[in-house]
Amino acid sequence: MSTHRQLHLNAFLLGAGHHSAAWRRPDSPAEQLGDISYWERLARTAERGFFDAVFFADGHSTGDVASGPRWFLEPLTALSAMARATERIGLVCTISTTFFTPFHAARMLASLDHISGGRAGWNVVTSMFDAEARNHGLEAMPARQQRYARAEEFVQVTQQLWDSWADDAVLVDRAGLYADPARVRPVHHHGEHFQVDGPLTVPRPPQGRPVLFQAGASGPGRDLAARYAEAIYAVAYDLTAGRDYYADVKARITAAGRNPEAVAVMPGLVTYVGSTEQEARAQRAAVDALLPTAQSLAQLSTFIQQDCSGWELDAPVPPLPPLERFGGPQGRYATILRIIDVERPTVRQLLGRLAAGGGHCTMVGTPESIADRIEHWFRSGAADGFNLMPPTLPDALDDFVDHVVPELQRRGLFRTDYTAHSLRGHLGLPRPARGAPA
Amino acid sequence: MSTHRQLHLNAFLLGAGHHSAAWRRPDSPAEQLGDISYWERLARTAERGFFDAVFFADGHSTGDVASGPRWFLEPLTALSAMARATERIGLVCTISTTFFTPFHAARMLASLDHISGGRAGWNVVTSMFDAEARNHGLEAMPARQQRYARAEEFVQVTQQLWDSWADDAVLVDRAGLYADPARVRPVHHHGEHFQVDGPLTVPRPPQGRPVLFQAGASGPGRDLAARYAEAIYAVAYDLTAGRDYYADVKARITAAGRNPEAVAVMPGLVTYVGSTEQEARAQRAAVDALLPTAQSLAQLSTFIQQDCSGWELDAPVPPLPPLERFGGPQGRYATILRIIDVERPTVRQLLGRLAAGGGHCTMVGTPESIADRIEHWFRSGAADGFNLMPPTLPDALDDFVDHVVPELQRRGLFRTDYTAHSLRGHLGLPRPARGAPA
Repeated sequence: MSTHRQLHLNAFLLGAGHHSAAWRRPDSPAEQLGDISYWERLARTAERGFFDAVFFADGHSTGDVASGPRWFLEPLTALSAMARATERIGLVCTISTTFFTPFHAARMLASLDHISGGRAGWNVVTSMFDAEARNHGLEAMPARQQRYARAEEFVQVTQQLWDSWADDAVLVDRAGLYADPARVRPVHHHGEHFQVDGPLTVPRPPQGRPVLFQAGASGPGRDLAARYAEAIYAVAYDLTAGRDYYADVKARITAAGRNPEAVAVMPGLVTYVGSTEQEARAQRAAVDALLPTAQSLAQLSTFIQQDCSGWELDAPVPPLPPLERFGGPQGRYATILRIIDVERPTVRQLLGRLAAGGGHCTMVGTPESIADRIEHWFRSGAADGFNLMPPTLPDALDDFVDHVVPELQRRGLFRTDYTAHSLRGHLGLPRPARGAPA
Repeated sequence: MSTHRQLHLNAFLLGAGHHSAAWRRPDSPAEQLGDISYWERLARTAERGFFDAVFFADGHSTGDVASGPRWFLEPLTALSAMARATERIGLVCTISTTFFTPFHAARMLASLDHISGGRAGWNVVTSMFDAEARNHGLEAMPARQQRYARAEEFVQVTQQLWDSWADDAVLVDRAGLYADPARVRPVHHHGEHFQVDGPLTVPRPPQGRPVLFQAGASGPGRDLAARYAEAIYAVAYDLTAGRDYYADVKARITAAGRNPEAVAVMPGLVTYVGSTEQEARAQRAAVDALLPTAQSLAQLSTFIQQDCSGWELDAPVPPLPPLERFGGPQGRYATILRIIDVERPTVRQLLGRLAAGGGHCTMVGTPESIADRIEHWFRSGAADGFNLMPPTLPDALDDFVDHVVPELQRRGLFRTDYTAHSLRGHLGLPRPARGAPA
């Protein structure tokens, strides 16, 4: 790693932007979401800003198709194409350990790593929704502990598969061996969830192993991150929540016997950048004004797993069950509880807060004031970087790259050019030796 | 379809070429097999020759890594990248119905179809080897009948998933609905092998459904092809075998209530093109001479599922069990029996015959003499086109594109420019209406 600590930035690309009304803007790219050249342009913008990676989420159910675009292109195919439109930026692909199997995931990620010349990352998720499970032969999502047990075994097998070929296994000795069979070993995994013989069909990836991202918010999720993640996508509504999460997960990494400084914690960050504070606030208000309240209440119902379609918009948010009695995904729910606790919002105010990024940290202001806050998070133990969630695309990404990145560079917080060719290199991570512990 | 019957040509891209010694040539691209730009160059060559498609095989086990490259990049990721290096040529991806599930396959193929602007094809296979099964949680390959029963249900569910969004479901009404929920329907499939609720996360592909290729050789394989295939990759050692297969499979298509003229039968074709017959034969002899006999005997052992490592090279091939007593993949075995029957070869001669394309039709000669034979197959009920299997890459593909394609064009047998933008268009296939029978 560089001796001088630097910020890490991912560009989390989603639909027409993370704000749920982004697609409703007159000039939104909502018609282009199935057009790969749209995604390539976004990736090139992030690369122009020297971001560590673009980050693709994924889900296996359509959700409410009326209220806005949710998914379109499948991430592995989309990122493989985007690899060819870019040269240096990392490509982080979400793959669910509940719906995939290790051989498929290892093979496709290894292939993406070869295609991109060492720029693949894997965001490990265990998925959330019963509607997703029903597309994969399950009646409902397995319980959290089961999902994480499967995820851990999945990650272990995947890493063994990436290590099944030695780095020097392919000899191309034209008078002799193409590859040395002694350097290509089976995996012979017989576990609780998977039986995989190996070896992989793909020689060892350029990075050794694609970089492992994780976004655990629950206890089991944080523990999985502590044991395996090489970078962490976090949810932190404010600096207090950011510091709490950061301290907790770094302690867990230490407890797992790993170096906490090597694992970048990157909270999601929604930004509205203006040349004045007023202009930035006006940008936000303009897209907030496009928000249909019925749709937002439906989204809130999903987040809190109860029907709030009848809630009165200008009344205070009704009391919600405490975190420990909530059976759904913990991260966002904890944030909602925190927003209610800190801001005592009306229902309408809560909807506005959640419309972009669903309660992730939001910074609205000038390049300087946003850089101030980023620097403060970075220097006060709340973040090693951010997973930027542009509320509107492409403009909010353009604004960040064109105005905030130069300000961060002026402060010596962010690279002024790429210094590495792999995603591992951008993150300061060593290339894992074959057979090294995760 | 064009009123004037035209040849169809796919370029089946594999390793350093289909000849198992191709990688041993001094100038072979054996070091570049993980480099996507190698595959992009090949795809552009095929596109320069106005081929219908590039065709990617797939397998889920490494095989004997010593004897040569078998697999490297995973096909869905590779073809997604190659889509961006080409504009018109189809991209046919092999996906195993034994190792994938319908939701994953439908989603990735739909995404590839969007990324490529309507150029995706799916070569449906049921896979072969126990070593592959052991990478996917199975102890051994299921029996053929079971595999084909699963394959049929798999294809049906996949087509339902592609049809789950109406072509006009995405409205992008900025003041109203992103998509019309009434035009996005679930699948609610509860079958013997799969439970899939749907709808797909990807709106309907540009082609409606990616084009379905199949290569069944066994009875169940031919029946699956008859019911579902929109183009067929065949194995035919000689004109007699080609005519027999063609007549049989076209009759099965008719019996299945479909139009046999709409389904192109495309045997594999290995070509050595020279400016003289002698030069072409010398090309073949040069690569044959690089063949290690031990490796070839091992490959033969795989094909006939018995150990022939001790066979005497210059003795006649020992008697083999008849086709009906053979438990492995039928197509190649039938070809081996036919080579033995027609040529009465020594073991060494049989190895030479199998080294390139494993007993597919081989044409060695000048552009004119090869075009003569192609035309003869085409006009005498043996082929609607060919799946070209260049024995050596990139040169044998270059030779075909630069010398044989112009000769076919002079004869009015092959297009002189693309007339369509989709793979369906190249093959003269209509775009299936939503809900149309397969």
